[in-house]
Amino acid sequence: MDIINYLKVNLNIDIQTQEDLPFPIKEKTIKKNKVITDYNQIENKIYFLKSGFIQVSISINEEEKILDFIFEGNFFTAYTSVLTQKPSDVQLIALTDIEVEIIDYQDLKRSYEVSLIANKLGRYVTEWFYIHSRNREKDFLTKPVEQRYLELVSKRKDIVAIVSITKIAKYLGIHPDSLSRIRKKIIS
Amino acid sequence: MDIINYLKVNLNIDIQTQEDLPFPIKEKTIKKNKVITDYNQIENKIYFLKSGFIQVSISINEEEKILDFIFEGNFFTAYTSVLTQKPSDVQLIALTDIEVEIIDYQDLKRSYEVSLIANKLGRYVTEWFYIHSRNREKDFLTKPVEQRYLELVSKRKDIVAIVSITKIAKYLGIHPDSLSRIRKKIIS
Repeated sequence: MDIINYLKVNLNIDIQTQEDLPFPIKEKTIKKNKVITDYNQIENKIYFLKSGFIQVSISINEEEKILDFIFEGNFFTAYTSVLTQKPSDVQLIALTDIEVEIIDYQDLKRSYEVSLIANKLGRYVTEWFYIHSRNREKDFLTKPVEQRYLELVSKRKDIVAIVSITKIAKYLGIHPDSLSRIRKKIIS
Repeated sequence: MDIINYLKVNLNIDIQTQEDLPFPIKEKTIKKNKVITDYNQIENKIYFLKSGFIQVSISINEEEKILDFIFEGNFFTAYTSVLTQKPSDVQLIALTDIEVEIIDYQDLKRSYEVSLIANKLGRYVTEWFYIHSRNREKDFLTKPVEQRYLELVSKRKDIVAIVSITKIAKYLGIHPDSLSRIRKKIIS
């Protein structure tokens, strides 16, 4: 999946080549464990994740939480920082080697002035960010930890092979020992 | 402020009359205390608040919280429900008599197919919803109750005259008695 495919599948927009997009894109490979966007950095890029996955964390009152894992086929960025041009409160890290397509936010903003396709894409991706963020917040408040673990694993079976127990526990908001007990209970 | 003004101020788009908008709008007055959108209702309207203010609440594990107060000059709706067409997890109530402009979501969706202005507006409003929701979540986790109270009151001085102590306490996530103590401390 790439941005051209994403436009076709989600918005029924037919674009043949990258040159026909209303903004330039760059392709890049980023190594496992690399910090893509750090805390307090002002974000100026939007990423499309072609392969691999990334972690989104947030530091609140000096305690770090993992907010999210993002998988291929989705856009990601420190979006509040992009939109407000204030320092990011989230950190983005590649959990595997990843391939991305990158849109510079200044290019995107310029294309928003005149391009129907750019605005359709911007609207659609922002809707996705909104729904995703509200669901995540709600799931955290309403779903039992065991259910959130099972949903994460069913989304991506290989996540337990790639991401450490400590990180998955940080995502679930529990101690790693509690996660080990949950996993034993599920297996047995 | 109305939708035509909102387009001018935020997106530098000049529209003269409602007939020139890419979607039809209806104007309506809604009485104080009226439930605009209820829990489990499927939302199909987007509202622009011309005057008055509204309350957004959420019910989590049978406990009701006030998520937000929205003031004039902003759009509001049960947005996740609009976008997913699933039952709403929030309830919207008019706290004063309010005047609104209403866009039917089916009309808006049709205009998204072809209209640059509709997509610019949809993108911009969704960006606002996203930033607003993320900031609210973060403020709740990081800011002391007293600071959140002062910020609310400084936004709208008349809120304490119109909204009950119980509701403001529900918004702050504290007992009404604690809020009374905070208010006494601030006044003295």
